Amino acid sequence: MAAPITPPRGMRDFLPADKARREHALGVIRKTFAAHGFDEIETPVVEDIARLHSGLGGDNEKLAFSVMRRGLDSDDLAAAIDHGDLMSLADLGLRFDLTVPLARFYATHRAELPPVFRAIQIAPVWRAERPQKGRYRQFVQCDIDIIGEAGQLAEVELITATAAALEALGLEGCTIRINDRRILNGLLEFCGFEESRWPQVLISIDKLDKIGAQGVVAELSADGADSAAVLGGVLETLEPHLAEGGVALTVEAITAILPDGIDTDAVAQLEALAHALSSLPPGVELRFDPTLVRGMGYYTGTIFEISHPGSGSSVGGGGRYDGMIGRFLGTDVPACGFSIGFERVVDLIELPETDGADAVVLVFDPTVPLSRLLTLKSALLDDGRRVRLERRAKNLKALLDRSAAAGFASFAFVTDETGSVADLEFKPLA
Amino acid sequence: MAAPITPPRGMRDFLPADKARREHALGVIRKTFAAHGFDEIETPVVEDIARLHSGLGGDNEKLAFSVMRRGLDSDDLAAAIDHGDLMSLADLGLRFDLTVPLARFYATHRAELPPVFRAIQIAPVWRAERPQKGRYRQFVQCDIDIIGEAGQLAEVELITATAAALEALGLEGCTIRINDRRILNGLLEFCGFEESRWPQVLISIDKLDKIGAQGVVAELSADGADSAAVLGGVLETLEPHLAEGGVALTVEAITAILPDGIDTDAVAQLEALAHALSSLPPGVELRFDPTLVRGMGYYTGTIFEISHPGSGSSVGGGGRYDGMIGRFLGTDVPACGFSIGFERVVDLIELPETDGADAVVLVFDPTVPLSRLLTLKSALLDDGRRVRLERRAKNLKALLDRSAAAGFASFAFVTDETGSVADLEFKPLA
Repeated sequence: MAAPITPPRGMRDFLPADKARREHALGVIRKTFAAHGFDEIETPVVEDIARLHSGLGGDNEKLAFSVMRRGLDSDDLAAAIDHGDLMSLADLGLRFDLTVPLARFYATHRAELPPVFRAIQIAPVWRAERPQKGRYRQFVQCDIDIIGEAGQLAEVELITATAAALEALGLEGCTIRINDRRILNGLLEFCGFEESRWPQVLISIDKLDKIGAQGVVAELSADGADSAAVLGGVLETLEPHLAEGGVALTVEAITAILPDGIDTDAVAQLEALAHALSSLPPGVELRFDPTLVRGMGYYTGTIFEISHPGSGSSVGGGGRYDGMIGRFLGTDVPACGFSIGFERVVDLIELPETDGADAVVLVFDPTVPLSRLLTLKSALLDDGRRVRLERRAKNLKALLDRSAAAGFASFAFVTDETGSVADLEFKPLA
Repeated sequence: MAAPITPPRGMRDFLPADKARREHALGVIRKTFAAHGFDEIETPVVEDIARLHSGLGGDNEKLAFSVMRRGLDSDDLAAAIDHGDLMSLADLGLRFDLTVPLARFYATHRAELPPVFRAIQIAPVWRAERPQKGRYRQFVQCDIDIIGEAGQLAEVELITATAAALEALGLEGCTIRINDRRILNGLLEFCGFEESRWPQVLISIDKLDKIGAQGVVAELSADGADSAAVLGGVLETLEPHLAEGGVALTVEAITAILPDGIDTDAVAQLEALAHALSSLPPGVELRFDPTLVRGMGYYTGTIFEISHPGSGSSVGGGGRYDGMIGRFLGTDVPACGFSIGFERVVDLIELPETDGADAVVLVFDPTVPLSRLLTLKSALLDDGRRVRLERRAKNLKALLDRSAAAGFASFAFVTDETGSVADLEFKPLA
């Protein structure tokens, strides 16, 4: 027997039922973001490989798929070996996120874009990760970004639009945890970590929910036990609050759980943000979580993550990254973004039941002329029906069960006696 | 000055206006195909490189972008040089069409699919072609295929659904030219070409509209003048009919313009097809064109191409390819497909004017509190409006012009005195 034929490792095909659910969810997200004043754009799936590897993608850069230059010959390979530069064989790479392409897009088209640009990007990205449950090598991200807005209006509109999109999908009761990179940095300073170690320390803190305060201390003690011990003490104090998902976004609540003197400006801004977010959908909870890290190195201010009781991990996240857009442009531009983890969200939603109400199956005898079949189908289409033609099969039950599973609501037989739509007798399926 | 930052060569970014037009057109096509009983599926953008290069993709295989294996080292390169096998460095490739992935998808999932499977695929493909006007390295195809239906029902449903999709986009008055590979083959046999030359002869005939009958003869004479001369005679007889787009799809009209004895079965089937297609949208013309070739080698029967007066070249094409699906599956399965050339179609359509009627801009003074802005926005969103917030700029006219160009219909000022939506005075934009 031949080897099973499968899609590439870690990637998925979508059969009709899955594809319908995905397109429905994407449509709801797209429509919500557009209503909130965002504009959809699109970039090619590949970018210049040097731009992809410019340091903006963090660890994801290592996971990029590289596209080989066309027309390579043995001499090119030999040269790559001589120069120890295997990447010279590739000129493009599949994007691993939508943020690097957005920075490139903005640099390319800035003159044609408004001073404050609200972008929607709904598109697949690729990462050569070790495949595991719920983690794929091709997956969809739904990003909104506001470029050119330095004020909190950006955070507020992003968080409101994302919460609204999840609500429109039927995912009510989300919790949004918020932090500020400046508060995190203040905490690391307070503990006495040298700035060169901050990225490493943040990676450990990011694992707090998995390894606990003592685990974080153990990971960090090898390179200096003093700072690690101080951090451990702070984290232990925080743990009861984190068990409740964080604390209220007020200066009073925040200063009560943090060591004295940590970025008071940032703390005041968080309270202002919470105040501005007072018109979030009902049931959405806002919490301050000083241990929220968000993996990417480019964040400079507010960071946020959104979770839903139906999903064990976050269903989206984002933050402010004021330095990044300028990397391709040469001048600094403020920017803030929020990304919905589509693959997690799509598993949580249900398709509206009304979708198939008008869908009908015509089960026809093989003797009925094609032109009659098409005339009947055409008349039903004109009535706004979805129509599928099925040749009458020996196993009629299997045919009808399959049609019901595919979302069709009713069926009728077409025989040699069927003259027009008026002769069709529709019966419900399933 | 730094070098201009651009998307990869031959690929395009889509700014909001273009993206909106594309999404509108894709939505119309998707909805029409679904109404006609087709089911949308999706496959990863890459496929196993050996499958991509299995000979089913014709000349397009040479244009495939290859994805490098991860973790290559100098030894791998040296081995590739030694074995003269540079392709061993790649394990995946970007798909160059949607037909090879469909064949792979069907082989993977056949057990889960109905006996007659009607597939929609709307997705980008990639070809490393020399970039030129209207030809891109990433472009979207909209394919429908019917797998498992040996009868003309397949051709009829594909042609009807495609014509309906173009009509729904506002592209009325299409012409569909139809031929059958068996008629073409009969013609080549009649002219005395050896079967091994048929692919080459078909390539020449395919250029008839560019180089004329004498050009075809000139191209083919080097390898045997006799057959070329006979073909030249046939083509010259046909030219007046081709100038009118072909002849009627009746046995009488077809036999009148072809040499005697050419596949009479195929001719009779074309007449039957035309009869079954009698419920096409009004204004769609069907014509028989015995010189229609369609590039791909895998076609086995009916082939068709659809054109619109607004476009110089065809806006779609397809045909029957009964042998191909079996290549991955090991058993033959009948199949037929029709592909809309989306990049050509999208340039011909107009966006419905109603799209932006509910879209409003709130021009706010910087002193208005964020929470008030968000409450106003939220109330308008609840009313079904699309809302964009714009900070009042020195150049108000530029702001309003930009908003109008972005599809917003009206605007209102938000000042410190604005308490609720009732205080907003909307004025039309543009």
